[in-house]
Parts: sequence; structure tokens; C-alpha cells
Amino acid sequence: MTNLKKFQNEWLPKINAQLENDLSQVSSDDDLVAMMKYAVLNGGKRLRPLLTLMVLESFEQLITPSQLKIATAVEWIHSYSLVHDDLPAMDNDLLRRGKPSVHALYGEANAILVGDALLTGAFTVIPQALTVSGAPASESIVLITQYLSQAAGANGMVLGQIHDMQNHDGAESDFDQESLLSLIYQPKTAALLRYAAQAGALLVKGSANDETFNPDLVTKIADFGEKLGLAFQIQDDLDDFQQDTTESVNALPHLVGVTTAERMRDDYLNDAYKILNDIKLNDQRFHPELLSELITFIGDKS
Amino acid sequence: MTNLKKFQNEWLPKINAQLENDLSQVSSDDDLVAMMKYAVLNGGKRLRPLLTLMVLESFEQLITPSQLKIATAVEWIHSYSLVHDDLPAMDNDLLRRGKPSVHALYGEANAILVGDALLTGAFTVIPQALTVSGAPASESIVLITQYLSQAAGANGMVLGQIHDMQNHDGAESDFDQESLLSLIYQPKTAALLRYAAQAGALLVKGSANDETFNPDLVTKIADFGEKLGLAFQIQDDLDDFQQDTTESVNALPHLVGVTTAERMRDDYLNDAYKILNDIKLNDQRFHPELLSELITFIGDKS
Repeated sequence: MTNLKKFQNEWLPKINAQLENDLSQVSSDDDLVAMMKYAVLNGGKRLRPLLTLMVLESFEQLITPSQLKIATAVEWIHSYSLVHDDLPAMDNDLLRRGKPSVHALYGEANAILVGDALLTGAFTVIPQALTVSGAPASESIVLITQYLSQAAGANGMVLGQIHDMQNHDGAESDFDQESLLSLIYQPKTAALLRYAAQAGALLVKGSANDETFNPDLVTKIADFGEKLGLAFQIQDDLDDFQQDTTESVNALPHLVGVTTAERMRDDYLNDAYKILNDIKLNDQRFHPELLSELITFIGDKS
Repeated sequence: MTNLKKFQNEWLPKINAQLENDLSQVSSDDDLVAMMKYAVLNGGKRLRPLLTLMVLESFEQLITPSQLKIATAVEWIHSYSLVHDDLPAMDNDLLRRGKPSVHALYGEANAILVGDALLTGAFTVIPQALTVSGAPASESIVLITQYLSQAAGANGMVLGQIHDMQNHDGAESDFDQESLLSLIYQPKTAALLRYAAQAGALLVKGSANDETFNPDLVTKIADFGEKLGLAFQIQDDLDDFQQDTTESVNALPHLVGVTTAERMRDDYLNDAYKILNDIKLNDQRFHPELLSELITFIGDKS
């Protein structure tokens, strides 16, 4: 069994338990909690929380209950974005992972509100982590809140979705290769994976009592997350394209063809790999093996 | 000129300038910024930020730039809620303050996303305040983030809207007087006003370097905000009812009649007044005059 598989086997159930526990407590209203759980506890891969935890693991950190809780907040954001993306006014998807989407099951008004509640709830989960065992300093919580909101908001995920909605139903994309990457892939997908890696680095930095942690490392690890995110989104579009070549016009395989898209995916994965090597050269405590396996895993999906 | 009017004249322009400044910087995308500004900078009374600042003023605090910034975050939340409430799947309102609602002007997808961006942006504004002049301690920022998200989320405003959507188009309300107050008025309106007062108290507490600030005061001031919020919502529904008696079935005047609704509004205002007197008895630094005027102002609208 690979390190990655072992890590997933250990932490995926813990991430899901944390999500379920926090969702159970976010509202006194059973119906709303049930709708929110339906949106979140649906067999997701939890790539974003796992990425935060993998960064901690790579610096030989024992992951604390507080850090686990913080790592799951991004999944509330990711889940809300899927609920809103599926809405009739957006992608109008009636199915999500083979089951009815939230609005298909509970109606449009509830789906809008469930998304709003999940988005808001992410910013309850993070501050609550201050009172959980193994909490980082308040300063770290404040920074993590700021970075998550920026990655998810009007310069991040929401902006990417706004661009993606442009010419959404047209026969051809308004975007060329470069603008597709910078205006959709980067904000819509890579920003949140960048944040997930960055949050892990901030938590490592927060638990370092010595002065040995180079602040450049946070940026380098964030950059690693971004490259990984870009490759991940290209791979996701390649998977969709193989099933249906008309799925989305705002997708790289549609625009440049499968071969070029695969090459670009591999370029991003190589960039990510180089960053890991660079970090390893500058910090002896860093063990890149797990994150290297994640790179391979994302590239291997083709 | 009353103290209240003077305070509004001084702080309303500063609140609007802060909102405009933060909105300008929240995204590199001019179109998105323009849509977000359209939603927020529309002549709102800014009751919630003003309430936070009035609490600070009542304890003779000089309001710092950081505190002003924190006080405006709740207005991002309030504004997003109006954008989403107006959506076709919700109230389907094409007008807001005499102008086209956001979805009427920019389309439904953009309105959903503008709302999402505003909600997310509130949680950028608050942590950013840590680096602004006169900032509270990180611990206060974390608490304020937690309380705002709880007031706005699945146990607060979003829950109130979910309840309000139930039997939304029916001829009669499913709610009796008590459940209307506890399931709609309290979470949908009063929770956010409760938060606004509480945030002011937390900022007062945060700037008190001595141990003289009684922690009970935060709860008392929060309770004051809640009573005020309940009265405010009843008054708002009374105003609507006078214009159109069929406007909403989930409104107190519709359910119990105008006279009883007015009496209940006055009861809540009296409760709020009693809390101010109680605080004054226990804390000599507290000057209740400004908040007393706010009570009178809300009751005087009829």
C-alpha cells in the first residue's frame, strides 16, 4: 500500500466524522441539518482537507484535533459551491454523483439557502477551532480566515464561476488558452487548493516554536497547491471530455485538444514536483514523499 | 439636533466610505465590483454598523479605524441577504428601494454569485481589520468572526429565511404568534442586530485594559440588540402592512392585527430600555442616552 493510500485510509474517515459532527451542531433545526448533510456527506474525495493535512504530515507534525477541524472548513466551502453551481440559473444539473442535486431534491429556495448556510458555517468552524485541543494561536486563525475568504470570494472561486458563466451556452468559448487558465481554472479551482496547501503551511509555521521556519515556505507550499490545482482541473476536464465532447466549451480539451491539454497538465505537475524539491533543499524536516505521490496520483488518472 | 441625528450625520458617511473602499479592493474584476457596489451602496440606513458604533460611543470610546472597519462587515451580510431574498426562487422581487433588484438588472446567476461574494467578503473584512490602526486583539477578531457567522448562518438569519419560505405563498401563515417570533423574527432579523450590539460590546471589552469590564455586560448588550431587533422587525412589518395588507402572511400585523402588533413592539422597546437602565446601574462609564434615542426612534416610526 502506498503512503498516500495509507494516509487516505487513516484520515478520510476522520475528516468525514469531523464534518458530520460539526454539521450536526451548526443548527437546532433538524430539517436544515439534514439538507446540509445531504449536500456534504455524499462520498466526496475530500482532496482539499487532505491536502492541508498532508502538508502537516510532510513536516512530521502530529495532527491535532484543532488542526483537523480547521482543515475541514474548506470542504464546507467546496460543498456550497457545488450546490450553487448546480442551480437552474447556473449549470442546471439535476444529478450530482449519481444522486439528485440539492435543488432537485429540496427545491431551489432551499438549495440557495443550504449553500448560504454552508458558506457561512465554514466561518464558524474555523474560529471554533480556537477552543479545541492543539489549537494554533489566534493570529493563525485570523490569517487562515482571511486567506480562505479571499480564495473563495470575489477574487477567487466566485469570480471563476462568474467567468465560467460567460458564454456558458455558446457553441465556442470566448476564452483563449491563456485567459481560460487565468480567468477560470486559477480562481475557480486552483485558488481553493492553493489555500488548502497554504493553510497546512500556516499551521506548521504556527506550531514551530523556534525561528527555523522560513516564511518563504508558506508561499512555496501555496504555489505547490496552485500548480496541483491547475493540473487537477485539467484532468477533471479531460475526464469529462472523454465522456462527452460537448460537455463544456470553457474547458481546455475542447479548446486545445486532448494531447495538448495532457501536456499542459503534466507541465503543471512537473512545476509542482520542482517546488517540492526546492523546499526539501531548504528544510531538512520536510519529507516530500507523500505530496509526490499525490502529484503522481493526479497525473495517473488519465 | 438630537444626539442620534448628530451621530448618524457623523458616522453614516464614514460607514459608506469604508464600504465603498473595501468593495473596491475585494476583486480585481471591475464588473463584479460594480455589481457588488450596486447591491450595497444603495442608500441603506446602515442600522447594524451604526448600532455597533453606538455601543462603543456609549462607553465613551474613541472609535478607531479598525473598529469602524469591523462594524461594516455586518452590512456585507445584510446586503447579500437582500440580494438572495429578492431572487425569483425566494420573494421574486424586481424592485429594491425603488430600483431594479440585482437579479432584475444583472440576471439570476450573477445575483446568486454577487450574494455569495458579499457573504464571503464579510469574512475578509473582519480579519483584515487586524492590520488597521486601533485594532483589537486577535482573540477579539476570532470571537467576532464566530458570532457573526453564527448570527448569519444555520441557527440565525439563513434559518429564519428558511422558515419564512414555508407556506410563503399560502393564504394563511402556518405560524402562531409565538412561533412567528421565535422561528422567523428572532433568527431572520433580531440575530443580526443582536450580533451588531454584541460586537460593539466585545470591542469595548477588548479595549478595556483593566479588569473593570464585567463580562455579563456583553450578554446584556447583546440582549438589548435582540429586543431592539424584534421591535424593529415588527415596525417594518407594520409599515408594509399599512401599504399592502396582503404583502406577507408571515407577518405579525397579519396574524394578530395592528393594535396588538404595536403593543408587542412597544413591549420589546420597553425591555430594551430596562436593559439600558440595568447596565447604567452597574457601570458608571455607560451613557445610555444615544441608545435610548435609538429606541425612541424605532418606536416613533409609526
